Amino acid sequence: MAILKFSKMHGLGNDFMVVDGTRQAFLPDEQLIRQWANRHTGIGFDQLLLVEPSQSAGVDFRYRIFNADGSEVEQCGNGARCFVKFVTEQGLSDKSEIVVETAKGIIKPRLNEDGLVTVNMGQPRFTPDEVPFVLRSGEEVGANSYIVVNGLDSAEMSLLSMGNPHAVMLVNDVANAPVEDWGTALQKHQRFPERVNVGFMQIVDNQHIKLRVFERGTGETLACGTGACAAVVSGVRWGLLAAGEAVRVELAGGDLYISWQEGSDVMMTGPALTVFTGELAY
Amino acid sequence: MAILKFSKMHGLGNDFMVVDGTRQAFLPDEQLIRQWANRHTGIGFDQLLLVEPSQSAGVDFRYRIFNADGSEVEQCGNGARCFVKFVTEQGLSDKSEIVVETAKGIIKPRLNEDGLVTVNMGQPRFTPDEVPFVLRSGEEVGANSYIVVNGLDSAEMSLLSMGNPHAVMLVNDVANAPVEDWGTALQKHQRFPERVNVGFMQIVDNQHIKLRVFERGTGETLACGTGACAAVVSGVRWGLLAAGEAVRVELAGGDLYISWQEGSDVMMTGPALTVFTGELAY
Repeated sequence: MAILKFSKMHGLGNDFMVVDGTRQAFLPDEQLIRQWANRHTGIGFDQLLLVEPSQSAGVDFRYRIFNADGSEVEQCGNGARCFVKFVTEQGLSDKSEIVVETAKGIIKPRLNEDGLVTVNMGQPRFTPDEVPFVLRSGEEVGANSYIVVNGLDSAEMSLLSMGNPHAVMLVNDVANAPVEDWGTALQKHQRFPERVNVGFMQIVDNQHIKLRVFERGTGETLACGTGACAAVVSGVRWGLLAAGEAVRVELAGGDLYISWQEGSDVMMTGPALTVFTGELAY
Repeated sequence: MAILKFSKMHGLGNDFMVVDGTRQAFLPDEQLIRQWANRHTGIGFDQLLLVEPSQSAGVDFRYRIFNADGSEVEQCGNGARCFVKFVTEQGLSDKSEIVVETAKGIIKPRLNEDGLVTVNMGQPRFTPDEVPFVLRSGEEVGANSYIVVNGLDSAEMSLLSMGNPHAVMLVNDVANAPVEDWGTALQKHQRFPERVNVGFMQIVDNQHIKLRVFERGTGETLACGTGACAAVVSGVRWGLLAAGEAVRVELAGGDLYISWQEGSDVMMTGPALTVFTGELAY
């Protein structure tokens, strides 16, 4: 019987069990993670974050992410924010910029003075193969939008990858956007072979948008980090949002701040909160 | 800023945040309970259980139950089992039978040597007014069953109250019982003015049943404590189950043991598990 200490955290409602693997021994086990992820008989979380020591020079930590089904995954923007808050609160680091080794390479998330955390979300990709999106023969590819026709209607969309596929469209009033109808219809659309996350963006001004996102495999969610990035990138390319400035993205679960300009990485800033600390025997 | 220690427990998947109010000050607050009940941004639970000292002679504790919406409720069989396990594990009591003051009166739950907990669930009630069930004019009332006709078909059922209304029917194979169809149809039936929990019982032998329950307002659940009581009471009255003996009730969420004989209280025995202990600032 071993004792495990952990923290329960969330970033805009995306919630995590966070385990310090630098001061206690913990071997991630698929069966245990599934058991703990159960929201009635376990702790309940979307992902488990495991902080480990790094063997590499100049790197502060290694950081691993496990889904509720026990599988290891590569990246999670909301999780990276919680990771930074965790190592700071636990006294594992007193740096404001932390160098972290992930399954996808080195990231350098930063704790700001106001308590928000900034994470580098990488570069957006725009070619149809990278989204992926199937072009029709003879179809012209515009600089930043395609016409997609589904069974209902046609709409102009920005198509891009933030590591996962996104379609972003403009709406006048996000409260009345056809999120469910269009989100569902585009999941089945043959031109998105890996399905697609669908964002509905309302421009408030050039540094402020409202956004709702229909996530593939899930439906509408409270706060999709990559969806916020995809929307701001699209808005900047359309000339509707300020390039290189922090754009406030109002989501149902709270606010994120995204900045991007052509050729740069997307930077995402947002909150990370500790709900409680816990201890369990296993 | 106050610190609160708590345990997270469950009984067959019905889960609880349990707070010791005897060694730390805690004033239950509707707003806080709702916040903590949230499964993504809080701790997540069906109910909060608060253990308080009792002012009454011969009574060990006072015990209060709050739903996830912050409202105080009277009774919860799965919660009473967790309460007993909690006061034992926390060293608040070393008795095997604990005398507890609840909003509904004194109960005396008992910790058994095998770690299971037995709770007195009170007497079943059978008159149509008590269920409640609307009799048709001129309709004969049998000793323990009525014919109910819904839009689909007719079935013989046992109708009773365990503090809440239950209809129990026999099936040959619980796996293929029409739980959703019949459960939904009976909710709307005009003869159940306060709706009804619907149990589908398969007799394995006279001390073993399999049971599925469609709960009013919720749908099919993993483990309905009062539903297990209602089923065994019905089986005993039909002469199919052993009176006064522990009958094993196999539910999707696990096993309960129910014993009852005519004129007695229903006794329910089952598990209670601590998942973790936690600490939060509020």
